[in-house]
Amino acid sequence: MNRQLSLNAFVYPAGHHEAAWRHPTSAPHRIYDVDYYREIARTAEAATLDAVFFADGPALQGDVTYNAVGRLEPITVLTAMATATERLGLIATASTTYYEPYNLARLFGSLDHLSRGRAGWNIVTTGNDAAAANFGLDAHPDHATRYERAQEFVDAVVGLWNSWEDDAILLDTAAGLYADPSKIHEIDHRGVHLRVRGPLNQPRPPQGHPVLVQAGASNDGRAFAGRNAEAIFTAHQRLADAQAFHDDVRSRARSFGRNPDDVKVLPGISPFIAGTEEAAKALEREFDELTVPAYGLRQLEKITDRTLAHLDLDAPVPPGLFGDSGDVTDNQRSRLQVVAGIVEREHPTLRRLLHRLAGARGHRVVAGTPEQIADTMQEWFTRGAADGFNVMPPSYPGGLEVFVETVVPILRERGLFRREYTGRTLREHLGLGHPANPWSRSRTRPVGA
Amino acid sequence: MNRQLSLNAFVYPAGHHEAAWRHPTSAPHRIYDVDYYREIARTAEAATLDAVFFADGPALQGDVTYNAVGRLEPITVLTAMATATERLGLIATASTTYYEPYNLARLFGSLDHLSRGRAGWNIVTTGNDAAAANFGLDAHPDHATRYERAQEFVDAVVGLWNSWEDDAILLDTAAGLYADPSKIHEIDHRGVHLRVRGPLNQPRPPQGHPVLVQAGASNDGRAFAGRNAEAIFTAHQRLADAQAFHDDVRSRARSFGRNPDDVKVLPGISPFIAGTEEAAKALEREFDELTVPAYGLRQLEKITDRTLAHLDLDAPVPPGLFGDSGDVTDNQRSRLQVVAGIVEREHPTLRRLLHRLAGARGHRVVAGTPEQIADTMQEWFTRGAADGFNVMPPSYPGGLEVFVETVVPILRERGLFRREYTGRTLREHLGLGHPANPWSRSRTRPVGA
Repeated sequence: MNRQLSLNAFVYPAGHHEAAWRHPTSAPHRIYDVDYYREIARTAEAATLDAVFFADGPALQGDVTYNAVGRLEPITVLTAMATATERLGLIATASTTYYEPYNLARLFGSLDHLSRGRAGWNIVTTGNDAAAANFGLDAHPDHATRYERAQEFVDAVVGLWNSWEDDAILLDTAAGLYADPSKIHEIDHRGVHLRVRGPLNQPRPPQGHPVLVQAGASNDGRAFAGRNAEAIFTAHQRLADAQAFHDDVRSRARSFGRNPDDVKVLPGISPFIAGTEEAAKALEREFDELTVPAYGLRQLEKITDRTLAHLDLDAPVPPGLFGDSGDVTDNQRSRLQVVAGIVEREHPTLRRLLHRLAGARGHRVVAGTPEQIADTMQEWFTRGAADGFNVMPPSYPGGLEVFVETVVPILRERGLFRREYTGRTLREHLGLGHPANPWSRSRTRPVGA
Repeated sequence: MNRQLSLNAFVYPAGHHEAAWRHPTSAPHRIYDVDYYREIARTAEAATLDAVFFADGPALQGDVTYNAVGRLEPITVLTAMATATERLGLIATASTTYYEPYNLARLFGSLDHLSRGRAGWNIVTTGNDAAAANFGLDAHPDHATRYERAQEFVDAVVGLWNSWEDDAILLDTAAGLYADPSKIHEIDHRGVHLRVRGPLNQPRPPQGHPVLVQAGASNDGRAFAGRNAEAIFTAHQRLADAQAFHDDVRSRARSFGRNPDDVKVLPGISPFIAGTEEAAKALEREFDELTVPAYGLRQLEKITDRTLAHLDLDAPVPPGLFGDSGDVTDNQRSRLQVVAGIVEREHPTLRRLLHRLAGARGHRVVAGTPEQIADTMQEWFTRGAADGFNVMPPSYPGGLEVFVETVVPILRERGLFRREYTGRTLREHLGLGHPANPWSRSRTRPVGA
């Protein structure tokens, strides 16, 4: 079989467009309702998508006056989605700065057990002061410190997941022996930021460990991704940038002794889809016209750490306004780069820039026919810019439904995407191997070696 | 309608008896499987039980060599059980010492949203060094410090749950106004142990807040329960002790200005059930004979902080061996008191004592016919010793099934237990009111007051 696309549905409460909740294709009154998410899961599974994915941060972010920015905790939501599906992967974002490794290892380990091997963890370091203030800090730790802790955190969490060997449980009811204690290990992680003894209080997850996902744009972030990530979510507007990023993280993976094919690069794409290109562009305008400039302005100020309220909405954005600026998260940095790129190439008015960003917070927005959407996905996929996509429907559930009904069949016809699941776990969908357990590896080396 | 019993199924992986996993009425090969828990949930709901309940601690506790002591994380398990049921309450234990309030508020808040108002939180302070070592500490914080933090923690978590007023969401799509920011509040908790700014990033839970549960046996624990708890799990062997405890926590609740009927006291009871008393006692012996003395001895050493390995299994336990000892958790203290009581009253051999404790870790074990089990429950209920019970089947799923098939019908015939759910939320099952939101209360006081 040809190399196949990986496709995730990136679930955002009412949709990725900031005005989605005002559009009739969304259901904002249902965004705290369990059946809403279970229906989305079934839609995604019926389309044989690899996974659903949730962003997250431990703070109320964005202005709730103008947008449906509240959200449920994603690991619990994914557990509810797990019980509505059989094959669909389940990826949640969680912070290495504001969690304890033991608690996080248990939550994701349990999700992996309860879903029979479908969990993924999108590792973020979370760099905003609103989150810090919810955890007793005056400001978020700096970028380098966060990444240092993140590496320790991942080492500790993976160590905990590996702390039971796969064959630790004996279940010998006759002899009264439940497990072999020599196959359950204290990990005794002692780092600069974290000390964790272990073992975890549950067996190794079915996938060995949940799939490790990351979104790395800074140098630290790319290094981290090259070392740890099995899938990378990125934000790129242009093919050339995405190709360069793809090459870069593959070579970084190689430098850590990894097979670069074990790192799947999945750019975000937010598709406005209609029967004609004109209708698709009109749909995008319809969403854009529902935006509230005060909201977009405040979001842009937050992403870019600039004061913008004094600028004229209908005058061109001053060039050079959005140069790189010190300590931001990878997520912010990648979006900042996108903003700077748009200003440089398109010389937009501030209002136009706000519309360009309203679609998916700086991710790539494409309006077109199903064939056109499939064309651009195919081009990025075949030209080394992407191994698949994090699909970001402008609205939920309507935007996901139109994507799976119209674009997925074309991708299937072209032999780019599965018609049926061939695997049962998220790892299998992504073509990733089952990670070896270091404890078992050392035990099983040949006698005399 | 008469006052009604509250009945929870206390779920323990293979059952509460320490040898349950060796008994054919258990299913130890399924204790990490999602359908196992969903079936238990359906069994409990078919019997109109108030809730299922999970104990928890962030460490591998008990000797995994001899017992199935690994476990999944309970909030995720309860989420999976929520989607298999409509009415059943869902109570998880979580630690105020080893969680962050913002993370915990989100997890339980989400469980309450996803279950449409069925979540409960059993608040524990967790005092064991194995847990401490998983969180970077050399030893667990002392008893007083843990309770001081626990009170702050509960204040912060309840504050976060209240941070959105019930009518904060406007959903005015025409005007583009999602929520009224004047009804979403920073809580700005600043204590000795915790600082939390808020608001929470999700609306107020359907129940106002999840039901607050506690298991307080020490003086600090009872004071904490009297102030905060809406349900209390206890361990008592004798009616008189349970009556005294019941009176004590009710008067403590009163001293905090609360209605004592808003505190439900639920002792644990582990029933061995058979058609005749002799058969029930034989069943209990069958379980006891499957125990491994080395396991029970190690558990007893841990509970009591005594060295016991040098004692003769078949000699009487020296009197006075298990007097109260300084810094233990409430859970440990209540079990220590139970152990000391058994020794004092029954003068058992060490082997006999281990069997007495194997049933439910110091909780009350009763062997008898369904009528006899119903009789003792009725006696405790009508004589002021209990508002209901935390039912601890010796084995799962078999022990729960026999309880709901044989004892529940008798309790219903006697008018002591519901035949159908009359409410939809855990609060409603327990007869607890919807908590007022202090922000809304202050807003709605009469003008001029």
